[in-house]
Amino acid sequence: MKHADILITNGWILTMDAQRREFNPGFLAVSGSNIAAIGPMAEASAWTAAQTIDAGGGIVLPGLVNTHTHAAMTCFRGMADDLPLMDWLQNHIFPAEAQLNHERVKTGTLLACAEMILSGTTCFCDMYLFEEAVAEAAHQAGIRAVVGEVLYDFPSPNYGPIEAGFAYTEKMMATWRDNPLITVAVEPHSPYLCAPDLLRRAADIARRNDSPLVIHLAETRSEVDTIRERYGVTPVRHLADLGLLYPGLMACHGVMLTEEDMDLLQTHDVKVAHNAESNMKLASGIAPVPQLLDRGICVGLGTDGCASNNNLDLLSEMDTVAKLHKVNTLDPTVLDAETVLAMATIEGARALGLADRIGSLETGKAADIIIIDTCKPHLTPLYHPASHLVYAVRGGDVQTTIINGQVVMHNRELLTLDRENVMRDVHQLAAALREQLPGAAAH
Amino acid sequence: MKHADILITNGWILTMDAQRREFNPGFLAVSGSNIAAIGPMAEASAWTAAQTIDAGGGIVLPGLVNTHTHAAMTCFRGMADDLPLMDWLQNHIFPAEAQLNHERVKTGTLLACAEMILSGTTCFCDMYLFEEAVAEAAHQAGIRAVVGEVLYDFPSPNYGPIEAGFAYTEKMMATWRDNPLITVAVEPHSPYLCAPDLLRRAADIARRNDSPLVIHLAETRSEVDTIRERYGVTPVRHLADLGLLYPGLMACHGVMLTEEDMDLLQTHDVKVAHNAESNMKLASGIAPVPQLLDRGICVGLGTDGCASNNNLDLLSEMDTVAKLHKVNTLDPTVLDAETVLAMATIEGARALGLADRIGSLETGKAADIIIIDTCKPHLTPLYHPASHLVYAVRGGDVQTTIINGQVVMHNRELLTLDRENVMRDVHQLAAALREQLPGAAAH
Repeated sequence: MKHADILITNGWILTMDAQRREFNPGFLAVSGSNIAAIGPMAEASAWTAAQTIDAGGGIVLPGLVNTHTHAAMTCFRGMADDLPLMDWLQNHIFPAEAQLNHERVKTGTLLACAEMILSGTTCFCDMYLFEEAVAEAAHQAGIRAVVGEVLYDFPSPNYGPIEAGFAYTEKMMATWRDNPLITVAVEPHSPYLCAPDLLRRAADIARRNDSPLVIHLAETRSEVDTIRERYGVTPVRHLADLGLLYPGLMACHGVMLTEEDMDLLQTHDVKVAHNAESNMKLASGIAPVPQLLDRGICVGLGTDGCASNNNLDLLSEMDTVAKLHKVNTLDPTVLDAETVLAMATIEGARALGLADRIGSLETGKAADIIIIDTCKPHLTPLYHPASHLVYAVRGGDVQTTIINGQVVMHNRELLTLDRENVMRDVHQLAAALREQLPGAAAH
Repeated sequence: MKHADILITNGWILTMDAQRREFNPGFLAVSGSNIAAIGPMAEASAWTAAQTIDAGGGIVLPGLVNTHTHAAMTCFRGMADDLPLMDWLQNHIFPAEAQLNHERVKTGTLLACAEMILSGTTCFCDMYLFEEAVAEAAHQAGIRAVVGEVLYDFPSPNYGPIEAGFAYTEKMMATWRDNPLITVAVEPHSPYLCAPDLLRRAADIARRNDSPLVIHLAETRSEVDTIRERYGVTPVRHLADLGLLYPGLMACHGVMLTEEDMDLLQTHDVKVAHNAESNMKLASGIAPVPQLLDRGICVGLGTDGCASNNNLDLLSEMDTVAKLHKVNTLDPTVLDAETVLAMATIEGARALGLADRIGSLETGKAADIIIIDTCKPHLTPLYHPASHLVYAVRGGDVQTTIINGQVVMHNRELLTLDRENVMRDVHQLAAALREQLPGAAAH
């Protein structure tokens, strides 16, 4: 007999490996932080385990990867919606963010971690202020995270001048270097808030440390206009001219892309984080995802922050993504369920440079696994699991979440966080924000 | 002391009445099938009740109204996705529907009722084959329904020739006339599957019986082309020419509308059922909903059937609707949360001719009420309930569903249906369909 720490049995297992193998019914063995074995149920009898989780015919798949969010913005969820972009930013979001500090960002991020774990996300890439607090929260929650302090030209409420921002980023790298869950990225905000020097310097630090480089890129028409006015080129071309396009760069949004922009992204193997729901809610536009995929560009999915979504549920996001591009191209065959599921798992992992470790269920990879409870009316009957995952499953249907071999949620109970405390802290923070921002937090 | 059957306490009550009054904290009393009182919590002390439901600070609102679905298609959920429309219809949906009968439609509809009740829908408008089975299922589930046998030129697998279709419809009217939950509608399929005589006859029966008239209208480009070829006009103009436009008509879809079409709908006070997710998934197009609303046309929301969605969750549908029209118009202020919430409640009721009875929480109206459990990470914090309902709440967050004064779901337990039996029956039906339709039910 072989011995595992955790044995998952009776699942319809979608490996999301290169061959897209499925085992139904299948089993999966976890030893330490890694997947020790995976295969048909018949082979499970060779294993014993300290803990056995019966998937009960449910779907077992790699944990979802949220390639772009601002986790702490959970504390602004629903504070201000349906407004013109500049009114929303200047009269609501910026004043609210000016009230943030390390502790408040940690409070908001812990709530985000709870929400993500409960809805099947096992890895997220974050860009925000006080990002050290995000790393602390993710570490406490036991969720995998790529964290990066947002860098821009003007003084930050966190670190002050940009020099200190680079220092803050490099200190985070030193702090979390050996942590199995936390990856530190370099995250200049965007071409319109970062001067060429800042961008070059950021890329240099990223390359030197073999860290991901993450940036908002070509999100809105107004950004394109600004960059064209300043530099005479598109945002993507501008980054190309600065030498910033390379396989370690993840461009978030990519809504406004010309053919030449897409050629450049393709040539340099730049990764893209697609945030359909946020782009819809802010009325930014629709990223040309089918064209990106046709070019073989790696596209992951992101929810963006809770002020522009207003949830972190990647299962809902998948549904929206699959439907949005069909109607946008008037072609019902684009972004089929299998493609969208890959974007939320293995392609997201690839976008973050983590595909050797996560994104598919394979022996030797990290045990980042979720189980969907399909014994529910809205998931009955079950013909094709990918179809259900994209078009019918919601965050609340995730039964179990395992990250790096640790069961962090089982039967809807969070095991690493105190759900009530996490919510109470954010309620208190929201009450404080309501007092500090009477105009922002109430109609 | 006044006595009620059910007292709901400690809720953030959204009445959706004409003044959009809210009570927070508020209470609501139910006597028999009706709302007996509603107001601030301070007034609750005047009431005793056989059953008290503590909303625990959650949101209390009118039950959601699904203005267009084909409930029994739950049994085809996920059977065939992401296909060209004609391939999907001719090689998957039509062969599958040829296998249906009264019993199978009832089986599929019971599952749909379970799903709808669990996700906060208290009233749905159905169009399908064997609609008597739908009425039976809705009656058994205790859910309010507008049912109508689909009428078209060719022989029906249910009733055969169209004469028998009219007879079937009128017999349903007689059977369910005094039922408080069931309304029988007249439902010709569409201008392209129904000859002018059929349409005129259907409208005549509807008007004579003061029944809703429901039709698919202007759903696809191909429909518009067909009607223009046959009659030289748009589908809406065609119905106008036949005298079918009047306030009792609900047009489902309305994707392809000209300015003149919208003028006609406005002039005749025709109601529209908007099915955003289905129109997206089938790549039909995006209905001009902001323009319809600007004209004061009543627009309700529908999920359409589970073969083209693939769920009946109106809370997710609201989210999609609010976001889709923002990106489609590049205006983040259109279809704000309050507007979309109205479409899912009072406007849906108006679309079905039931606004005197349901759609808002007012004394004397039917007690069709849902309670949302907001004590969840993804619904924390809570600044504005309408924002949460549209952008963050999902079907699984509904804690309690009351229809016509009967608690049909509480704490996620169905009280009128045996959840396990309902799912088991559909699993068996799906297994049978898999055998009968080897090409349709498997890749």
